Amino acid sequence: MNALGRHIIVELYDCKPSLLDDVTYVQNAMQNAAQQAGATIINLTFHHFSPYGVSGVVVIQESHLAIHTWPEWGFASIDLFTCGESTDPWKCYRVLKDAFLASHGSTIEMRRGQLELLKKNDYKPSSLLQNRNSITQKTNEKPIFRAENQHQEINTISKEIWFTERDENLALSLKHKGDLLFKKQSSFQKVEVFDTFAFGKALVLDGLVVATEKDEAAYHEMLVHPAFTFYTNSHSKPKKILIIGGGDGGTAREVLRYDCVEKVIMIEQDKIVTEAAKAHFEGLASALENPKLELVFSEANHFFDTYSDKHSKFDIIIVDAADTTHEPILDKIFFQKIYNLLADNGILATQCDAPRWHQEHFVSIINSLKETFLFAQNNKTVLPYLSSVASLPTGMWGFACASKNQENLINNQEKHTENSIILNEEDLSYYNEEIQKAAFCLPNFIKKILK
Amino acid sequence: MNALGRHIIVELYDCKPSLLDDVTYVQNAMQNAAQQAGATIINLTFHHFSPYGVSGVVVIQESHLAIHTWPEWGFASIDLFTCGESTDPWKCYRVLKDAFLASHGSTIEMRRGQLELLKKNDYKPSSLLQNRNSITQKTNEKPIFRAENQHQEINTISKEIWFTERDENLALSLKHKGDLLFKKQSSFQKVEVFDTFAFGKALVLDGLVVATEKDEAAYHEMLVHPAFTFYTNSHSKPKKILIIGGGDGGTAREVLRYDCVEKVIMIEQDKIVTEAAKAHFEGLASALENPKLELVFSEANHFFDTYSDKHSKFDIIIVDAADTTHEPILDKIFFQKIYNLLADNGILATQCDAPRWHQEHFVSIINSLKETFLFAQNNKTVLPYLSSVASLPTGMWGFACASKNQENLINNQEKHTENSIILNEEDLSYYNEEIQKAAFCLPNFIKKILK
Repeated sequence: MNALGRHIIVELYDCKPSLLDDVTYVQNAMQNAAQQAGATIINLTFHHFSPYGVSGVVVIQESHLAIHTWPEWGFASIDLFTCGESTDPWKCYRVLKDAFLASHGSTIEMRRGQLELLKKNDYKPSSLLQNRNSITQKTNEKPIFRAENQHQEINTISKEIWFTERDENLALSLKHKGDLLFKKQSSFQKVEVFDTFAFGKALVLDGLVVATEKDEAAYHEMLVHPAFTFYTNSHSKPKKILIIGGGDGGTAREVLRYDCVEKVIMIEQDKIVTEAAKAHFEGLASALENPKLELVFSEANHFFDTYSDKHSKFDIIIVDAADTTHEPILDKIFFQKIYNLLADNGILATQCDAPRWHQEHFVSIINSLKETFLFAQNNKTVLPYLSSVASLPTGMWGFACASKNQENLINNQEKHTENSIILNEEDLSYYNEEIQKAAFCLPNFIKKILK
Repeated sequence: MNALGRHIIVELYDCKPSLLDDVTYVQNAMQNAAQQAGATIINLTFHHFSPYGVSGVVVIQESHLAIHTWPEWGFASIDLFTCGESTDPWKCYRVLKDAFLASHGSTIEMRRGQLELLKKNDYKPSSLLQNRNSITQKTNEKPIFRAENQHQEINTISKEIWFTERDENLALSLKHKGDLLFKKQSSFQKVEVFDTFAFGKALVLDGLVVATEKDEAAYHEMLVHPAFTFYTNSHSKPKKILIIGGGDGGTAREVLRYDCVEKVIMIEQDKIVTEAAKAHFEGLASALENPKLELVFSEANHFFDTYSDKHSKFDIIIVDAADTTHEPILDKIFFQKIYNLLADNGILATQCDAPRWHQEHFVSIINSLKETFLFAQNNKTVLPYLSSVASLPTGMWGFACASKNQENLINNQEKHTENSIILNEEDLSYYNEEIQKAAFCLPNFIKKILK
């Protein structure tokens, strides 16, 4: 190719209007077109206009794809701009023409940056001209983030690639190192691993960050240790533990810090999640090979139905699963099944989503717990609490402990020395004795939404 | 125009290579070109390639502008795609040709979506076909966010417009309602007000969100009330208060909740910030007209130098100012000046940036405080603490109280009833008596970085 880039200008006619107006569909079609053409996606930005119409751009390593749709005219205007030999814009064209059910299209191919019109200069960016000292000096300004860059060869072509987790009003974007470390579509979800600059490796399920190396502890330690502390303060040591979800291994790792634990059953529906964790998160997955752990790949309800009558009950049950769809999983029926599996002095700990982001999930989970664990004269057997998880949008995550025996959670905030030796706080990155009390102190606005 | 869009295809030759390789410069040039052409910017995405080259797209309400640069060829390939009559892509062309000092350029103008080739259909999005009931049902799923949409006419053309606050590795984006409510360039910074869906109106200084309607309380209450509680628990009531910064009025509002306060001096350098607050943040700015408040528009150091010798000292000093540049403001010299202005039993409260985002700022501010307020045998006169502020990246914000008299902060965590009546917790949205203790309980990783 005697040019820097190829630009295919496409007009698609008589498309199906409803497809042109579906921003998710348009985004998926464009993403698919880029992938089919062998392009590496750097960034996506799509916007739906009210009452109708979509604009979107896919920035690829090899330039960009852009689309603007007019559903009322059945018309889409598309630009496919690629550089290099490895990406074929004509593949994008065919994918998109099919995707929008266009009856016909017009195309023009233009060569952009024709080499016979250009003259190469000897440009070098100033960063390559700086001596080692000045680079070191600059590095010192942001020691945590830059440190990870030092391994990069400054001369290699690298990307600014961002992963974005978003809902309709808020988005958190993390820059990562470009290569997708892991990507598999399981029967349940898309499982991906990125290496982000701010938080290290990130495990991403269907576009939602569920754990990052740098601050997964703020989630996993806080999901596990408050319940264990309550239990050990009021009873003997917990021996039999059930984990629902938790396929990345972080929750099992925290549970298995306690030597008193004899048996952990973990019910994870998605084998691919544990596979990704074992391959890329040594710190998370270490417990997955522990002989005390019985890892069952099954749907939680199937486990509840087959297990309940035959075996002894659990001292502590931990729910490390999320409501990511519009159908709530963590509802009253679900918690009633857990209630039935808990020993008389048993404690449940569950994640409860983000109160500032998915307030309705948070409130609904707490309310389902209260209905299940309520005592006639006192509903303090459900205690909501919080942790700060910086890599998740809004940074504030909700949890709750619930107990069949109200004495477990009340009057037991003080630590009893005879049991406290079972956890060495030095090894933990978030939880400590003070946090055990502090996490249960709720800001006024949380108290208000829970009333 | 007998087409839906105009597309100007531009090739710029013999540009200045260093300009083509400066991602910030390229972004500013493209943004400027869009603005000069009268376009409304929806989203910007720019990427710098290593070792050189920039790709970027400006998504505008009227379609998009895209650029790809090859500094080593002095070449830029630009697409200017606009719809409607109000935006002139040729203006963009002229702005960009000048910006990159191109010796010459080639252009082609194409009409996209020629009307003679199109046929209008009767498309209506399904949202317009639904009856009132089903809309209400959908609204109930996300009560907090959707409620604000209800004022919008569903038939008006509205945008999906996002504001993004970012550093090099992390970005938080908030969707807003499109119109910039306030925009002025002061001598110090760009002052803007957006109306976001997730957090209500947002005050933005030089691209950084400093306060949003929905969770400014998590910042302002936590900056003010811990220090007041310490003071009232160990002494009589504080009377004379100094606020450094705080131009939006939120800090003054919290201070003036205390009837015992007789005089507040507030030193804000930027009058435009208070102007924006008065115009758009009733809840923040209410205290700015309070007769007990003396608002001085001045640089803090100028105030320190002229004030110190002539007047009585302050019971409580509150620093509501940020280190947003690479030069630290909140350093030892700064805190020494504050130390000199504090009464013998005086307490300082300061914001300390985000420990998970700007760890080096957080640690440096705490260390400067410790050097200033250190006692030989005991350094507990500086107490760092945390609040969850969801609209700020990572959601975790750092603060500290420091005292000249170590008795103030130690042994005074318990509330004394005779003083506690001065604050009605019912009116607060974050702070309460439990939070007073909990905020000072730090996760292990914070303790570690402060060691």
